[in-house]
Order: sequence, then structure tokens, then C-alpha cells
Amino acid sequence: LPGRNVLIVYAHQEPKSLNGSLKNVAVEELSKQGCSVTVSDLYAMQFEPRATRNDIVGCLHNLEEFDYGVEVREAYKRGDLSSDLIEEQKKVQEADLLIFQFPLYWFSMPAIMKGWMDRVLVEGFAHQFPDCYSSGFLKNKLALFSFTTGGSQEMYTKGGISGDIRYLLWPMQHGIMHYCGVKVLAPHICFAPESVSEEERKEMLLAWGQRLKTLWKEKPIDCSPEWYFK
Amino acid sequence: LPGRNVLIVYAHQEPKSLNGSLKNVAVEELSKQGCSVTVSDLYAMQFEPRATRNDIVGCLHNLEEFDYGVEVREAYKRGDLSSDLIEEQKKVQEADLLIFQFPLYWFSMPAIMKGWMDRVLVEGFAHQFPDCYSSGFLKNKLALFSFTTGGSQEMYTKGGISGDIRYLLWPMQHGIMHYCGVKVLAPHICFAPESVSEEERKEMLLAWGQRLKTLWKEKPIDCSPEWYFK
Repeated sequence: LPGRNVLIVYAHQEPKSLNGSLKNVAVEELSKQGCSVTVSDLYAMQFEPRATRNDIVGCLHNLEEFDYGVEVREAYKRGDLSSDLIEEQKKVQEADLLIFQFPLYWFSMPAIMKGWMDRVLVEGFAHQFPDCYSSGFLKNKLALFSFTTGGSQEMYTKGGISGDIRYLLWPMQHGIMHYCGVKVLAPHICFAPESVSEEERKEMLLAWGQRLKTLWKEKPIDCSPEWYFK
Repeated sequence: LPGRNVLIVYAHQEPKSLNGSLKNVAVEELSKQGCSVTVSDLYAMQFEPRATRNDIVGCLHNLEEFDYGVEVREAYKRGDLSSDLIEEQKKVQEADLLIFQFPLYWFSMPAIMKGWMDRVLVEGFAHQFPDCYSSGFLKNKLALFSFTTGGSQEMYTKGGISGDIRYLLWPMQHGIMHYCGVKVLAPHICFAPESVSEEERKEMLLAWGQRLKTLWKEKPIDCSPEWYFK
């Protein structure tokens, strides 16, 4: 929609990959709608995933013992976070919708994207206990996890060897986004694209574009244990 | 036990932290038992969490399109993985027990440790579909996730705002370790050490040392959906 800002946090090494194409489809469709779209292309940015002392500019709050959570909370207050974090936080702040586009690695996001979560969603910026979940600081924003899998859809069912795909969404959707107050749209999952035909991969791209056409009318999921484990 | 090899994969920035002390307790107690203990101190090693082309020495299998999974699988076969990965794989191969020691970051492990999983557990080395779960290549090994939380034990209960702590163990224990055939011991969790007294933190260290005394007699958990979601 005109006036809406979208941030796509994208983690794939290869622009020609299906993930790269899915990201492009989103940029095109959402731009066509009049949205302003920003992409954080994590591998291209060589985004740093490690949470270290380098994230704090200048002196530490506690010189005796380094506590990452405490240090970045204090650095955020002072405006002393490293510039890459300030930049990502500005993008988040301006976004109405966050799309995370990635290949599933080990029932979760790739480390480079986990590092984005670990480092960007600083206490004071995204949450501050007890301001979490419904009162998290990123309320009024939406998030959508869009990813590809290696395993088949059948493997990711309740009776399948890898269990219901929803089981593995709990830490990402509830534990991260919902914790910060973000409302979560249904995930978009392309199962086993490497095991299907070129034709079917094209259909996957079309289906994603199609979904995006009416995305702003979607209602968030009920991000409670029932959605995940019932 | 004499003759047993233990690998501790450890992710904390501060040696004086509780995580650092928990790691030291494990090194001391297991060494006293006669085990041979190796520590991968990920932050100290500046371990690389990003899965990139740098993990493959020499030429790529497919020069047109970079597929990380395919490339590391082929590089593993040729003996062309980067030296840091070969070293970690050797440690895993020799280990009877893997202990993962870390502070919980966003319902999961810190990105630096997720990167260890993403990069070390290469297809061909740790698994090769359909050789996964009970026939994963790392069968006959044990794993134990030992971690600290920010939130209280009460928050991590079925009725608590963060849900049963077992929900978030599914991707790590089942999706990674069990997938590779590793049997999983009950997790060791220190809840909210930053909210308790110095006295109580000392008790946490003692309890961990105590548990390790009889660790080799423990039976693995039944790593099925029932354990996590019932």
C-alpha cells in the first residue's frame, strides 16, 4: 500500500537461488503496490553475526566483567551502539512489515540471520521487561517468515519424522517477533524446491507474488501455544 | 570415565561469567573422572558463523550457481573443506559426548554457536538422507545442552508467557542432534542466574558438578514429540 514501509531481511549467498527470486518477487510486487521496500541483504553486507564487545563504541559500562546484554542496553541509551546496528534499527523502526527470507538451516534460520536478531533487537529498543509480548516496543508492526526447506512437506507433518513444521516456528515467531510485540502473519513455506521441477519452482514464485497482492488484508495468526502444538 | 572423550562447545564472551564457570566445572569434573576433555571456545576462536564460499578450498563444484549445501558436501568428499571445519569435525568424530554451553539468546543458541552447527555438521560427515535420526552418522554419541536463561523458570512453564522450556528445545535437540543420530541427555538449565544471589549461583555450579559425577549412568531422553509437547 502507498505509504507502507517494508523491510526484507534476506539471507542467501546466491542471487540466482530460489530465495533470491522470492526476495525479488516481493520487492517488485510490494513496490508496484506503492510500498517503500528496503532490503538487508545479509551475506552481501557481510553482516556480523557475533555478539561481541565491538558492538559498543567507546567505554564499557562494566570494565570488570563483560555482560553483552547489559552493555548493549546501556550503549543503546547513550547512542553508542556500532553504526551497523544503528542502521538496522532505523530500518526496523521505519518498517510496518518485516519479511524474513531464508533457507531453513537446521530447523531454524541461518546463523547470519540469527545474528541479526541477537544484535539488532536490543533491550530498550525492541523490548524491556515487562514490556514484552503485547507491550513489546515493536507493536503495530507485522512480521512474516518466508523460507525454503530441504525436507519434504510430508516429513514436516505431525506424524512425519521431522514433526509438524509449526513446532520449529515457535522460537522464531513467538520467542523473537511476538516477544518484541510484533504481530505475525502466517509463514510462507516452499517445501523442498531442489527436489521439484523448474516448472514447479516457477509456480512457487507465482504463488508468493499472488499472496502478496492481498497481504495487507491478512489477519495475524493467534501466536499462542495452541497454534503451534495442537 | 577413563577413555571417554568429551567435546565442550562453549559460547560466552566473558571467562568470569556463570557460563564460563559452568564450562570450567565440566572440564574439572570430567577430567577428574579420567575423560579427555576438549573445549571449542567459540568467541575466543573468533569462530566464523557465516556459511559462505570461503568454506570450500579451491574450485567450486558448480560455477554457475552457488548452493552451499551441495558445495560443502562435495568439498567434504574431496577433503577440501576449510581447515577450521576439518578441525571441528575431527573433534566431533573423536567425542563420545558433546556438551553445548551457552546463554539462551532469543529462545535458541547464540548465532556464533548456530554457525558451528550450520558449518560443521556437513552432509556426508554427520548425515546423508535417508541416513538421519536413528541412522545418522553421529550415532553412538551423546549430546547435552547446558544453558542459562534471562527469564525465570515460571515464565518457561506451560501456562507461562514464554511457554514450556521444552518447546524451544525441539529445534536444537531433535532438529539438529537427533537428526545426526546423536542421543540426547536431559538438558541442564540455570534459570535467570542474573536475578539470584551470589550464593544461589554457587549452588548452580555445585549442582552441575554433582550431576556430572553420575552423568555416564544417565539414559538419553526419548527424543520424540511427546517429550516436548505433551
